[in-house]
Amino acid sequence: MSRATVFAPGSIGNVGPGFDVLGLAVEGIGDRVTVELTAREARVADVTGRDADLVPRDPAKNVASIAAAAWLRDAKIDMRAIVSIDKGLALAGGMGGSAASSVGGAFAASAAAGRQLDPQAIMTAALEAEATVAGRHLDNIAPCVVGGLALVRSVDPVDVVAIPVAANWGIVLLTPHVRIQTKAARAILPELWDRASWIQQMANTAALLHAFTTGDESLVRRSLDDLYAEPVRAGLIPNFREVKRAALDAGALGCSISGSGPTIFAITRDLDARCADAMKRAMRDVACDLHIGPIAREGVRVL
Amino acid sequence: MSRATVFAPGSIGNVGPGFDVLGLAVEGIGDRVTVELTAREARVADVTGRDADLVPRDPAKNVASIAAAAWLRDAKIDMRAIVSIDKGLALAGGMGGSAASSVGGAFAASAAAGRQLDPQAIMTAALEAEATVAGRHLDNIAPCVVGGLALVRSVDPVDVVAIPVAANWGIVLLTPHVRIQTKAARAILPELWDRASWIQQMANTAALLHAFTTGDESLVRRSLDDLYAEPVRAGLIPNFREVKRAALDAGALGCSISGSGPTIFAITRDLDARCADAMKRAMRDVACDLHIGPIAREGVRVL
Repeated sequence: MSRATVFAPGSIGNVGPGFDVLGLAVEGIGDRVTVELTAREARVADVTGRDADLVPRDPAKNVASIAAAAWLRDAKIDMRAIVSIDKGLALAGGMGGSAASSVGGAFAASAAAGRQLDPQAIMTAALEAEATVAGRHLDNIAPCVVGGLALVRSVDPVDVVAIPVAANWGIVLLTPHVRIQTKAARAILPELWDRASWIQQMANTAALLHAFTTGDESLVRRSLDDLYAEPVRAGLIPNFREVKRAALDAGALGCSISGSGPTIFAITRDLDARCADAMKRAMRDVACDLHIGPIAREGVRVL
Repeated sequence: MSRATVFAPGSIGNVGPGFDVLGLAVEGIGDRVTVELTAREARVADVTGRDADLVPRDPAKNVASIAAAAWLRDAKIDMRAIVSIDKGLALAGGMGGSAASSVGGAFAASAAAGRQLDPQAIMTAALEAEATVAGRHLDNIAPCVVGGLALVRSVDPVDVVAIPVAANWGIVLLTPHVRIQTKAARAILPELWDRASWIQQMANTAALLHAFTTGDESLVRRSLDDLYAEPVRAGLIPNFREVKRAALDAGALGCSISGSGPTIFAITRDLDARCADAMKRAMRDVACDLHIGPIAREGVRVL
């Protein structure tokens, strides 16, 4: 096989307190990437779907192409990738769109070369692409590759732990139609932080991870609390506080900003259309997209 | 019953990266506290054992008495405590000595009043005592009460999660005969910390917790790495780096400072006298105490 199409799921980055550390893959929404291997020049053959107009056609600037090329180089395969992308995720929506395209590019190249999924190699190649647009972090790449909840223990070297999730919780993603650049959303965050605050953030992150492995709903409610990015970034997202209030009032276990926003996520006890409606209503007259889905148990996969 | 004797185990505070957040109870070493209830005045009847000379006899300054009185007040029991303490733990050794005496005082008072263990009430009362000598933190109190590995999610309000430990790892505690005051050891720590560092610390703490629940030895090795307190406090402990090197070379899964020191702890795959010997030899001519024991599965208990 010298051609493969894969599906790379969207993901919540910065899950609550787990800034740069916890990511959660979401089922039913993602990017579809096809790679055909060629002995000739790399190129982007086609881009369709969400934000297609904004996706670079220059393979040196397209994350799927960059990741595919990085994987081929690391695997010492002297071929180039012809990439086609069908985007289900917005480019800067906070749902891991660039990570999904990156992972999709790397994994489609490897599948086209007949290889089984090697998570470490795919993450390493995808990171090289992601770093060009969103910074050198793995909290979207990791869940997109391994599925479920992913703990990023280290970026250099890449060290990711797939965390078993005990419960069938649902996820609501609400994306208002405003654009936030990942780099800009990072620039407003404080460089230095006081001891009491990071210790609280650390305690919440460890507790949240444990809540996922045990299915402890009460512990999610207590620990899904981001003291670092959410207070600063909330102001970038229209009606954020009202939407969060509505989600929690409707019974969500937790609600915060996905990645650097503007997507707002809520974790719910099951697929919860009522909670999603409450969140959408709280967004009032701001146009937005809504997605409800389970946690993606599997990460990137061949179609 | 108006009299009870309890055993409160020692504990490792600040387990690796889990500063103020992770504590681990150690079997076979601890404080024994007896409380007799009286309608007359509170008093400290007797103090024996380790550092007995340094333990205050004034009940207003003795942590076991303070904790017993706090528990009695919270339980609305109009009695006073006559306290006797047999200390197995040094006063400022970094093995949770003050926490054990505090927990012992509160729990002995409750047992003397015929009550079953109420972890929340015991931790709250013990915290009041611990705060007078070592600051307002729970990372020794929590494991001393609930046993095993304890996650302190919050101090105000008290929110502690008992983390199931999958493996029968051993613990080595090596305590050189130097004295470090908890408050002084805290004063040398930076108040502000940069983002990359606390994110790495947070990732390591979450990973270490997960390693305990899964018994993942390799993950302990990668994540038991304290970037915050250890680099600063290492200089307060004679031969720390040599002892740590010796522990890791002897196969320990991890080695760091217990609490604010001077005790050095190592986690080993089982009870490992060879590792303990290697650590003691690396301490060279500095006098020290050595303890080898399993993780204490149970916390404070009636004798």
